[in-house]
Amino acid sequence: MDRQVQKPEGVVLTRKGLATRQRIVEATSALVREHGTAATTLDDVRARTATSKSQIFHYFPGGKEELLLAVAEYETDRVLLDQEPYLSELTSWQAWQNWRDLVVRRYREAGVHCPLGVLITELGRKTPAAQALTGRLLERWQDRLRVGVEHMQLSGEIDPGLDADRVAASLIAAVQGGVTVLLSTGGIGHLEAALDTSLALLRATGVTPRWRDPESDVASMG
Amino acid sequence: MDRQVQKPEGVVLTRKGLATRQRIVEATSALVREHGTAATTLDDVRARTATSKSQIFHYFPGGKEELLLAVAEYETDRVLLDQEPYLSELTSWQAWQNWRDLVVRRYREAGVHCPLGVLITELGRKTPAAQALTGRLLERWQDRLRVGVEHMQLSGEIDPGLDADRVAASLIAAVQGGVTVLLSTGGIGHLEAALDTSLALLRATGVTPRWRDPESDVASMG
Repeated sequence: MDRQVQKPEGVVLTRKGLATRQRIVEATSALVREHGTAATTLDDVRARTATSKSQIFHYFPGGKEELLLAVAEYETDRVLLDQEPYLSELTSWQAWQNWRDLVVRRYREAGVHCPLGVLITELGRKTPAAQALTGRLLERWQDRLRVGVEHMQLSGEIDPGLDADRVAASLIAAVQGGVTVLLSTGGIGHLEAALDTSLALLRATGVTPRWRDPESDVASMG
Repeated sequence: MDRQVQKPEGVVLTRKGLATRQRIVEATSALVREHGTAATTLDDVRARTATSKSQIFHYFPGGKEELLLAVAEYETDRVLLDQEPYLSELTSWQAWQNWRDLVVRRYREAGVHCPLGVLITELGRKTPAAQALTGRLLERWQDRLRVGVEHMQLSGEIDPGLDADRVAASLIAAVQGGVTVLLSTGGIGHLEAALDTSLALLRATGVTPRWRDPESDVASMG
């Protein structure tokens, strides 16, 4: 993802400007975690960051909507980072299990206040820009899962006949669905059931004998 | 589900009262579909139903929050009904496929305006009462899926070693996750991928030979 931050007019921010912008984003993220998006006002952000309203509009000419989009992007970067080092190295069932455990732990801790879940749902429906951003963020996530599935297919631990991208999409849906139920009921059980069932069923498609030489993982990747 | 409608004080409504209450619920449902929950006011409901504000509060003493809960319950009844006759008769892979097609078609038509998805997410986080209602509604849905999975296990078309309730929970998550992505990006692909992958993987666990006498389905249910 392009990390260069541009204002809509195309003006590249200075290092100091970037730091202030980031400070505003992080403070807003914290406010959204505490109070939700609806109850978070620009006045709250101003007070929390000791900035002026004109400063906030300097960095976010679109106001609250644009600021919340930046928070969503920040939160998704965090979500993806929180899943490392496993998300980018899904090369064994142990790695998949570790990834599953990380995801469950993260959402268990975030609970019904999961900021990304809130933002994805609340921002997503409102504007085409928000939909496009959310789509790109889900794509990045799905892309890493797809690479992991393809790796497991190459080593024979997932049926190579399966469409890796659709399997990755179904894992994205499993996580999002588990989180949606968590947001609705407060229970983590659906997220756990969705991930455990998906991984167990994928594992059952593997054709690799259990006694296979682990070295062949490497060989098959050549 | 108990169809008797009681006001909080325990007063059972008359038939005419029930009809008026239902009319208010259905009109609110339509308004929510058109404008979303946030933009739907009690004044809109009053205008649409030609009722007075005091009438609305007679049926929904808790105001908009209580009315939206009733709408969520109504929408979920509709969602479950929309999945019939397949949801209650998931006794063959054809029935599961038909169910999958119905679900996809329904959400494709509802698009980003899916009223239940909106209501579950927006109401769910707000009050313990809404969480409990949402939980019960998901339970009814999951219960029917579990019965279907158990049927397929009895006929050997799904591995009897799988925990039917967790499989059903994962299917609920697949639907909810697909819908969440739909609400966020406008794309139906994740819902389709989630259901298709889940059903294909479940089907692959079946131990029943393809040439099996179809009659044995019945026998194994005895």
